[in-house]
Amino acid sequence: MATVTMIEENTKDAEVREVYDDIKETRGISYIPNIWKTLAAHPPTLKRIWLGIKSVMAPGRLDPLTKEMIAVAVSATNNCNYCIRSHTAAARKLGMDDEMLGELMAVVGMFNQTNVLANGYQIEVDEQYITTG
Amino acid sequence: MATVTMIEENTKDAEVREVYDDIKETRGISYIPNIWKTLAAHPPTLKRIWLGIKSVMAPGRLDPLTKEMIAVAVSATNNCNYCIRSHTAAARKLGMDDEMLGELMAVVGMFNQTNVLANGYQIEVDEQYITTG
Amino acid sequence: MATVTMIEENTKDAEVREVYDDIKETRGISYIPNIWKTLAAHPPTLKRIWLGIKSVMAPGRLDPLTKEMIAVAVSATNNCNYCIRSHTAAARKLGMDDEMLGELMAVVGMFNQTNVLANGYQIEVDEQYITTG
Amino acid sequence: MATVTMIEENTKDAEVREVYDDIKETRGISYIPNIWKTLAAHPPTLKRIWLGIKSVMAPGRLDPLTKEMIAVAVSATNNCNYCIRSHTAAARKLGMDDEMLGELMAVVGMFNQTNVLANGYQIEVDEQYITTG
Amino acid sequence: MATVTMIEENTKDAEVREVYDDIKETRGISYIPNIWKTLAAHPPTLKRIWLGIKSVMAPGRLDPLTKEMIAVAVSATNNCNYCIRSHTAAARKLGMDDEMLGELMAVVGMFNQTNVLANGYQIEVDEQYITTG
Amino acid sequence: MATVTMIEENTKDAEVREVYDDIKETRGISYIPNIWKTLAAHPPTLKRIWLGIKSVMAPGRLDPLTKEMIAVAVSATNNCNYCIRSHTAAARKLGMDDEMLGELMAVVGMFNQTNVLANGYQIEVDEQYITTG
Repeated sequence: MATVTMIEENTKDAEVREVYDDIKETRGISYIPNIWKTLAAHPPTLKRIWLGIKSVMAPGRLDPLTKEMIAVAVSATNNCNYCIRSHTAAARKLGMDDEMLGELMAVVGMFNQTNVLANGYQIEVDEQYITTG
Repeated sequence: MATVTMIEENTKDAEVREVYDDIKETRGISYIPNIWKTLAAHPPTLKRIWLGIKSVMAPGRLDPLTKEMIAVAVSATNNCNYCIRSHTAAARKLGMDDEMLGELMAVVGMFNQTNVLANGYQIEVDEQYITTG
Repeated sequence: MATVTMIEENTKDAEVREVYDDIKETRGISYIPNIWKTLAAHPPTLKRIWLGIKSVMAPGRLDPLTKEMIAVAVSATNNCNYCIRSHTAAARKLGMDDEMLGELMAVVGMFNQTNVLANGYQIEVDEQYITTG
Repeated sequence: MATVTMIEENTKDAEVREVYDDIKETRGISYIPNIWKTLAAHPPTLKRIWLGIKSVMAPGRLDPLTKEMIAVAVSATNNCNYCIRSHTAAARKLGMDDEMLGELMAVVGMFNQTNVLANGYQIEVDEQYITTG
Repeated sequence: MATVTMIEENTKDAEVREVYDDIKETRGISYIPNIWKTLAAHPPTLKRIWLGIKSVMAPGRLDPLTKEMIAVAVSATNNCNYCIRSHTAAARKLGMDDEMLGELMAVVGMFNQTNVLANGYQIEVDEQYITTG
Repeated sequence: MATVTMIEENTKDAEVREVYDDIKETRGISYIPNIWKTLAAHPPTLKRIWLGIKSVMAPGRLDPLTKEMIAVAVSATNNCNYCIRSHTAAARKLGMDDEMLGELMAVVGMFNQTNVLANGYQIEVDEQYITTG
């Protein structure tokens, strides 16, 4: 149970219902996931986050599956159960199989390891790594 | 300056020199980055980490550029300066331009935001997200 | 179930009982929350943490509700379920409603996002921001 | 030096210039801080983040100083140097003095401590803390 | 339920079975913990992580109990439930009692607090602390 | 430069001077490290944190070197530069050499890796790991 009351689909708040409809259409699903029903307790946040995600996750120079795998990487690093589950499910829908997830997690685990080694030994950045676009 | 004395390339430790040679050959570089010169202060760690990274970063189901971008995502989330710099440089060598980095950072930023919203509101996982391979 | 046996209120340890009485009186509650029953497995820690919290959370230049909302912000960022729940409940008792929690979480989410963008792009601090008291 | 080339104020990109003008007007400053010049390397991110912050930080049920102090709390917990500096400077402009910062940091430090104790001992949430709006 | 199907002990994969046998023999246990059954969904990761842990946790200059307590400290700081539980159990097997765990958690809690104070106030490193081996 | 003005040793605040004297005597040093001069900007925090650390770091069931190494482990995991430097220096004073630091960092790195694997795959805790004191 979330720390606020979730807003169900039959809400009378037209702004919330509009976002809910956009979520279902954009995602091709027939239900509203808990994160949106929870964020709806503060409608401006619901709208801002939904439009932000919709924009960020749209196909661009990175494809949708790559973006979902990056979402899994971030969520695993931050230990967000809800997010790990939802992005893993989304990535599977887009074609990620166990072997790809295995490679992804191997990379995520390895760099969580080397991040702490680089920080823990206070290693200075090599000048060769200072790059700009 | 790291918290241990870095081991330079002219070291007499044959095991360390062998790893250094493998790093230069595998990466196609003519110098040893500071992280390896630092880890070499504890040779078994140098060897284990290097062989692990070499294995994890080898082309597989995910291509090398995707893996480097995931490394940037993890390193940004953990705030490891050395790692952000080195993986950003590596990804640029493999073709990442400012627009791709922009999309990557947009995804990483967005999900650091939604991670804390999902955790902060204690949102329950939807049953639809419980998947296995 | 915690990783140590919780110390119940009928304990014969007088030092622990004294802290328990102070908790109930200070907080105006009739039970001892699990965190204190757990910390009591190491009495000096129970006493030190309780006295520390009592001092830190006392009214000062920041009011108690602001302090509890900051506690929610920290706990959400760290993903501590127990702490999110307990500080959200405490803030609600002090008057936080859904709209205030919504604004709080919007701020917390936003800055978790910009934190990772500032770190991930390795942005240098503007000289205008270097201030002391 | 950031990992992308910062976009200076004399850019020919009209969309970026419009955001820059809004930043200067809204904040009452005559220069563009580095974070915006960096995010401008990916214009849609510049615009989205700026409009999001402008909305989130507008006066509401929480006052601007409280919001800036929460931003300091989040940034300290995440260890974002740029963000700690910029939000501390902003909070000082809004009236935060050393004593208020001292109370803020005392709260932030304390709950980073208790967060890890609650997690580390795996303490179960008391039923009294399960609340909704 | 993990996000991949766990590989049971009766698997036909000889490489996995070999690792499983080594785990049971090295640890002196008669079952395979869930972490290994999960990592086995990606056999090269199972093997790499197991051999790495076996090497890192072998008695050396630090004794096994100290290493397990450090593992508890890291896992509590990162809030990994599985890891807190497994390393606490392992440390107890090696002789850690409630008082030792109490001291360990007191240290872990205290330095999570001072870490955020040092970062939050942006304290400069004293020259006396700059040391190498 | 910290975000507050550091309080120098010639301060007229008797309470601060008393803590400073205790720090120098307890630690056997002739100067006041920056963290204490910074915390002194809020005297009650200076006193509370110093007395807390003095108590937590006193010899008990864990010896002082073990406690300092745990402090390095926590600080590396949290990426606190000041704290990594100060605790590494303190541990070296107590006898930690490069090989011990190497083992420590190997353990810290490994469990930052496995923490994220256990979280990322959402592995369930084995019933054998549910222990209390």
